[in-house]
This record gives sequence, structure tokens and C-alpha cells, in this order.
Amino acid sequence: MSITTDSPLTEAELASAKRAYELDRKHVFHSWSAQEQLKPMVITRADGSYVWDGEGNKLLDFSSQLVNTNIGHQHPKVVAAIQEQAGKLCTVAPQHANDARSEAARLIAELTPGDLNRIFFTNGGADAVEHAIRMARLHTGKYKVLSAYRSYHGGTALAVNVTGDPRRIPNDYGNAGAVHFHAPFLYRSQFHAATEAEESQRALEHLETAIQLEGASNIAAIILESIPGTAGIMVPPPGYLQGVRELATKYGIIYIADEVMSGFGRAGKWFAIDHFDVAPDLLTFAKGVTSGYVPLGGVAISEEIYSTFAQRPYPGGLTYSGHPLASAAAVATINAMRDESMVENAASLGESVVAPALARMAERHPSIGEVRGTGMFWAIELVKNRATREPLAPYGASSPEMNELIGACKSRGLLPFANFNRIHVVPPLNINAEDLQAGLAILDEVFDLADAHVQG
Amino acid sequence: MSITTDSPLTEAELASAKRAYELDRKHVFHSWSAQEQLKPMVITRADGSYVWDGEGNKLLDFSSQLVNTNIGHQHPKVVAAIQEQAGKLCTVAPQHANDARSEAARLIAELTPGDLNRIFFTNGGADAVEHAIRMARLHTGKYKVLSAYRSYHGGTALAVNVTGDPRRIPNDYGNAGAVHFHAPFLYRSQFHAATEAEESQRALEHLETAIQLEGASNIAAIILESIPGTAGIMVPPPGYLQGVRELATKYGIIYIADEVMSGFGRAGKWFAIDHFDVAPDLLTFAKGVTSGYVPLGGVAISEEIYSTFAQRPYPGGLTYSGHPLASAAAVATINAMRDESMVENAASLGESVVAPALARMAERHPSIGEVRGTGMFWAIELVKNRATREPLAPYGASSPEMNELIGACKSRGLLPFANFNRIHVVPPLNINAEDLQAGLAILDEVFDLADAHVQG
Ligand SMILES: Cc1ncc(COP(=O)(O)O)c(C=O)c1O
Ligand SMILES: Cc1ncc(COP(=O)(O)O)c(C=O)c1O
Repeated sequence: MSITTDSPLTEAELASAKRAYELDRKHVFHSWSAQEQLKPMVITRADGSYVWDGEGNKLLDFSSQLVNTNIGHQHPKVVAAIQEQAGKLCTVAPQHANDARSEAARLIAELTPGDLNRIFFTNGGADAVEHAIRMARLHTGKYKVLSAYRSYHGGTALAVNVTGDPRRIPNDYGNAGAVHFHAPFLYRSQFHAATEAEESQRALEHLETAIQLEGASNIAAIILESIPGTAGIMVPPPGYLQGVRELATKYGIIYIADEVMSGFGRAGKWFAIDHFDVAPDLLTFAKGVTSGYVPLGGVAISEEIYSTFAQRPYPGGLTYSGHPLASAAAVATINAMRDESMVENAASLGESVVAPALARMAERHPSIGEVRGTGMFWAIELVKNRATREPLAPYGASSPEMNELIGACKSRGLLPFANFNRIHVVPPLNINAEDLQAGLAILDEVFDLADAHVQG
Repeated sequence: MSITTDSPLTEAELASAKRAYELDRKHVFHSWSAQEQLKPMVITRADGSYVWDGEGNKLLDFSSQLVNTNIGHQHPKVVAAIQEQAGKLCTVAPQHANDARSEAARLIAELTPGDLNRIFFTNGGADAVEHAIRMARLHTGKYKVLSAYRSYHGGTALAVNVTGDPRRIPNDYGNAGAVHFHAPFLYRSQFHAATEAEESQRALEHLETAIQLEGASNIAAIILESIPGTAGIMVPPPGYLQGVRELATKYGIIYIADEVMSGFGRAGKWFAIDHFDVAPDLLTFAKGVTSGYVPLGGVAISEEIYSTFAQRPYPGGLTYSGHPLASAAAVATINAMRDESMVENAASLGESVVAPALARMAERHPSIGEVRGTGMFWAIELVKNRATREPLAPYGASSPEMNELIGACKSRGLLPFANFNRIHVVPPLNINAEDLQAGLAILDEVFDLADAHVQG
């Protein structure tokens, strides 16, 4: 089955895509890549859940780019709001005040849990994490940060050092004050647990031990993705995040929830942490806040931490903090998500369409080791062997088998999100049921190829 | 003299500004500030070299916000380009290619000196600096970074640690690998120099000594603002940057030119380093590249450093690297600057209007210790005593005297850029001569107040 349509691109668009590719290869330095091993796909157009490549192929975007276009591409209301704000006032310095920024802060404060009522705006996720850690360090007077091995927190030096995934390794000089522990992940349990309840309890014991052995008096913060994203969408078992909250409070440690990927509806609630009825002290956001239409990130701050910086200067900032154009995009995005019940749509399609479809695939395909997720936030863990759980690509790497799968998706008109041995199902929150089913059907077909690599 | 006009704001605009202020005080956490000591000015409108505050006062923007609106506010061609790109394609993931990004990279590669032909895009200045340092560390296999005491390089942990100014201090845990030295600054010479030539030569000796004593084998990079901006617009004396380039080459150290503030025409050339005919290995930019209309920054990379990451992955990245909306803003900004000869305008008005006006003021006002600059990039150093050079505000702080000056500027319709004991003259590059003269006349008038504080 294929959802590729005939090229809707004009000759001029095709020529422009060709030039875009050539100039890219001459002048653009890409993230996380060996530059001469790249053959980037040109994206020329995008609409809703679809993008068009440089040859005019239409692809269903099951990646939401980098899991950020939560409202799909080119939402007309948000585009109009950006155009309107651009015509009115693009930029002011952060020390001034501005109506777009104020309204964005009000809306975000309203949506975030607990008393996270103060919003510090950044440009993206990494700087949100950097500033959240700084606030925690200055508020507590302590330095170390605990974070999970299977995690991603951003690309700047401090953010990549609290990151758990292998992208940290070439940037790790051992001096960032980052200490890593194991968060719960029953499928690959570090704790030899057999049930979710056991995994949760043992992971909490492990965390408390880490706090005690590192020294509570040294630890400024625990930072955790409420549902780890790029690392594999491991929904924490019941009780775990409550337990983390209690440990943080008990030991005078700031709890930072990183909701850069899991927030703004991705997990079927405004923030993934809302599934667990827990309020952190700081919450980082980016991506979904504007659906990536204009770069924006930030930190939502509790009243207690805010009060530390009420009379004492906060020693951090950036030129574009609270940028009006980005703020206007956030306001429009949040309003569109509310008006069109996108968070509810993500929750209900996740439950009614994705969960049963993936469950059926998991039965049918021996290459599927586990499926897990919620909302529009799902991972399919591919293995060579269900018994040993040997992954279809080694941890931290790709493999010919995974590349074959990705190519097969694209040739069938599906743009997938892949990481190591996993395919994530992370389309826009407002995808319609038909498109969602079509994309899942392509995955089902393509996993036959993975099955061929299963041994034993 | 006053250039404040009657309020052009409607009742609705005034009410919206009032609400913006109230929500700001409830929900917006501001950069570099004690939150409850702030009374931010609302900016409701902006046009060319002017902004309007929340009461409807029109102010001549001699700050270019944070020295970033190089083309002035709301340039119609750039606004139109943003609106057009918003309607076409706001965002794609960094691993894909896109025509707006490719064209922005081509233009920037064309403008930057030397063989800096590869462009890594970030969201702002701080992350540009973070990634430039990472590239230097991985390229050289060394760790330490040398930077100047009087400098600013950004707000994230690593960027603020290479920063020299006092904003580093609360963030300095001594472990970032940053080593600070003194760059030339004849007016407050560390080297007891009497002439520019002496200052240059002694500053180079000092830098070479630092390299030798820290150990060339430990030093990955020297990062320098080509003309230090926030720290005081100290134009380096002839020969200094050439000397830095030679030392970097001699000792196998990467030379990073930070052009975040000084670049994109600010200093009357496309990059401030062009005054000195020097090519660095890496050049960081932000601010002027889009005039701040859409957040964007980046690193221009030499072919040699690029080749390190040709076959080996660069371990860094970010969701919005090469964001199409930001890239389109960069393309339009650069084209508008070229079409309207803004860099030339900055250079010629700097020489024909600002330089003579400031020289006259320096004669007339005993509170002026020194004036210095080039292009649309000037500093006025205010002192209590010309003989002792005691500043009108202590290093790293404000003072009632400086606050009085700033208030007097604003009440006369001028929005100044102030830092410690300095007022900077940093209007848009395309300001007209009349506005420029009007703003300078306000400063001239206001310095009478400073003169009243002069002792001896
Ligand atoms: C959980 C999490 N935190 C932080 C980041 C960093 O965000 P950015 O790429 O905008 O710097 C990401 C990006 O994927 C993320 O998923
Ligand atoms: C020279 C220089 N480098 C870096 C930065 C940091 O840029 P940003 O505020 O966009 O992070 C600035 C900002 O003022 C700067 O002037």
C-alpha cells in the first residue's frame, strides 16, 4: 500500500529543491552528523500531517519533524497569527514588556501543574534545561544534578552532560556535575524486576541510594523527562514520579520535569506529568509550545524558586527571551489546540487506534519486542530475538536492518521517526483517524522486512 | 529639546499595554534581574528607529534593543519575507534540507571572511558560542578556552563561563576550562601603556605569556569579540587581532571571532574583523543576522575544521537548527542591507556625524572620560574625575548618577543603551542623519547632569 501521490510540485519548485540540495551540501553544517555521509531529504512544502520532498513525493509525517509539529504543518490560524504579529512588532529586548509575551506567559502558567506561575522564556529546549539547572543550583546552593541514563536534555554543554544517551559521550569531560542513574524500564530492567510495581519500587530504592551515596547535601536537582522521549518513550510505572517527588522533597532537591518533548499534548495530556498528578519545582518546555513554527522554549518556575530571585538578580538571560513573534506563535498554538481539542484527540486516537493497532502488530511480528506509549507518543522496540531481546540495531547506533526499514517506509510514503532499534509513532496530535490508520498499515507491512532478520 | 510626540496609541492599545504590564509582573521572569525590582517599559509599537512605550511616548531607539535591530524596526521587506515564508513553510527538522536555509547559508558564507564556508545554525548567540567551542575542542583534542576579562559571550553555562563580565561570577564553579586574560584597552590599560602601539604589543606579549604558562598543549581556543560590545566597544589597536591570529596559528589554537554583536554591519563593515583583514577559524553570529526579527544564530566554519566532521559525526545539534522562518528572515535582512547600502550608511554616518559630535561632547563635558567606536558602534565612558578616571558607576553595577542620566534620556524621548558607567550609541544602521543628530543632541544636553557629579 502506498499513499504517495503524483507530484504536485511545479517545475520551478523542483528546480528550487535541486538548488536547495546543492547549496545544502556546499554550505549547511548539520546537527549530529558526519557531514559527508549525509543525503538530506529536501522538504519543499508541508500541510497538516504531510510533507513533500524535493522530488515531489508526498509523505505522511509520522515524525512530527523532531516530535515538535504537534498541531501539524502550516495550521492556518497559527500562520495567520505569526503573519499578524510580524506586521505589528517582531522583536523587543527582554528587559522591556510586551503584550504577546505577557499573554503567552499567562497561558503557559495556566496550563502547567502546581504553582508554576512564572515563565522564563528561552529559544529552545537546551537553554531551558540550562537555565532550570542554574535556578536549582542557585536556589539550593548545591551543584550536582541527577539524571537518567536513558534520556536526552539538549545539545549545549551542560544540557548534553545531563543527557544520558550516547550523544553525551564525546562531550563528557567528567566535570559537569552530572550523575546518572537508572529510571524504570521494565522491558530492559536493571533491577531484575518482573512487574511494573516491582520495577517502580526498585527504581525508587535505586534513586534513593544514589542520593545517599552521592550525598543529598551535594545534589541541587533531579531532572527527568516525565516520559523519556528520544530514549524510547518509557512511560513510568504508577507511583514512580510520585516517589521521585517525595524523595526530592525529603532531601531538599529541586525536581525538574523536562517536558520539552512530552509536553503540549504529546502524551495526551497538556503535560505528561499530568498523568501522574505530580507537580515539579521547575518544568522545561519547547517544541510543542509553538509547534516549532517559531523557535521558543522556557522554564515554568514555582513560587518558591521565584522568590529566591525576587530581590536577588537571576544571573542568566538571552537576547531573545520572550521574543514577541515566538510568543504570538505560542499564544495562537495553545488557543488552536484548545479550540480544536487536539490534546483530547491525541488521547482518544492513541487509545482507540494506535494502542490496538500496535498490539495487533506485536502479535503478528516476531521482530517486535515491545510496544509502549500513550497519546500520540508511542515506541516500537524491534529485536532480532524476542527471548534475548537483542535489539535490531545496537544501542547508540544504526544498522543495515533499521536502514532498510526506514527506506521501506519512505518509499511507501511514510516519514518515520527512528532511533537505534526503535520506530516511534509520533504524528501530529490532530492527525485524522484515516491518515493514522494508513500510516500504521504501512508500518505493519514494513515490519515483515524486520521479521526476516529474526533469529530463534 | 524633546522628540516625544503626542500619543499615537488608541484607547485599546493603551488598555492592552496596561494589561501587558500587569501580566508581565504576574507571570514573566526576566533575564539578569531581581524580579521584584523591575518596572519594565511596555513596548507596544515600533517603526524604523522608533518605539512607543505603554503610555504612548515615542522614543528614538539608540539601543537597537540589545544592539540587534540593525535594520531598524519593522522593515517592510523583511516583514513581508517573514509573512511569505510563514505562509509557505514555517519549520522542518534539522536533518532535512530546505531552500530558505540553504540560501541563508550561501549568503552568510559569501559575507564571512576567509574560507568560512560552512554554516551551522543555532537559535542565538550563546548556543553559537557553545558549539564553536565544542568544534574547537574536538578538532584540537584540547580543552581550555582563553577569553578576555572584558567580554560577553552568552548566558548558557559554558558561554557565561568564557564571558569576562561580572555576570559570569555567580555561575563560575571554576571547572569550565575557561581562562581569562586582558585584551587591549588603552584607557584603562593593564599594561601601563602610553600609546596604542604599546598597548597592542604589550597585550600580545601578555597573551603569549598566558598561552605558555597555561600550556599551549592544553588550549583549544581563543575566543574574542572582534570589537568587544557590552563590555565597552574597545576597538582593538592596529596589529592586535593580526597578532592574535599569528599566536593562534603558532600554538595550534583555534581562533574564534565572536561577531554576535559586532557583526552584520554594526561596526561599519559586514564583520568587525574586516577592519583588520584577519580571518578566524570560526566566527559566531546572531542578532544582526535577522535584526532579531526571528531568533537565529550560528557558527561559520573554516574548511579545515569542517573536514574534521566530514566523516566523523559532529556531536551537537538542536531542534531548530536552520529553521526556515528564521533563515528566510536572514536572507531578507541581508538582501535589504545590501540593497539599501546600510553597512556603508553606518560607516559614513559614524564618521561624518557620530565621531565629530562625540568629540565635541568630550570637549564640552568634563564627565566624559573617553569616546570610542566606529560605524554605529560607539561608547561614551563617563567618569567622576577625568584625572583618576573613576567611573560614574562602579564596575559591574549601576549608580544613582547613571540612573538619573538614563531617566533624563527617556523623558526627552531617547531610549539609550547603558552599561555600568557607559552610554553606548548603537542605533539602527539605517538611521537617518537627522534622527541621529537629534539623539546625539539629547545626549549632549543630558551629560550636563553628569557633569554636575564631576569632582576635581
Ligand atoms: C526532552 C528534551 N529536552 C530537551 C531537548 C532539547 O531541545 P532543543 O533541541 O530545542 O534544544 C529535547 C530535544 O529533542 C528533548 O527531547
Ligand atoms: C558578543 C556576544 N556574544 C554572544 C552573545 C549572546 O547572544 P544571545 O543573547 O543571543 O544568546 C551576545 C549577546 O549580547 C554578545 O553580545
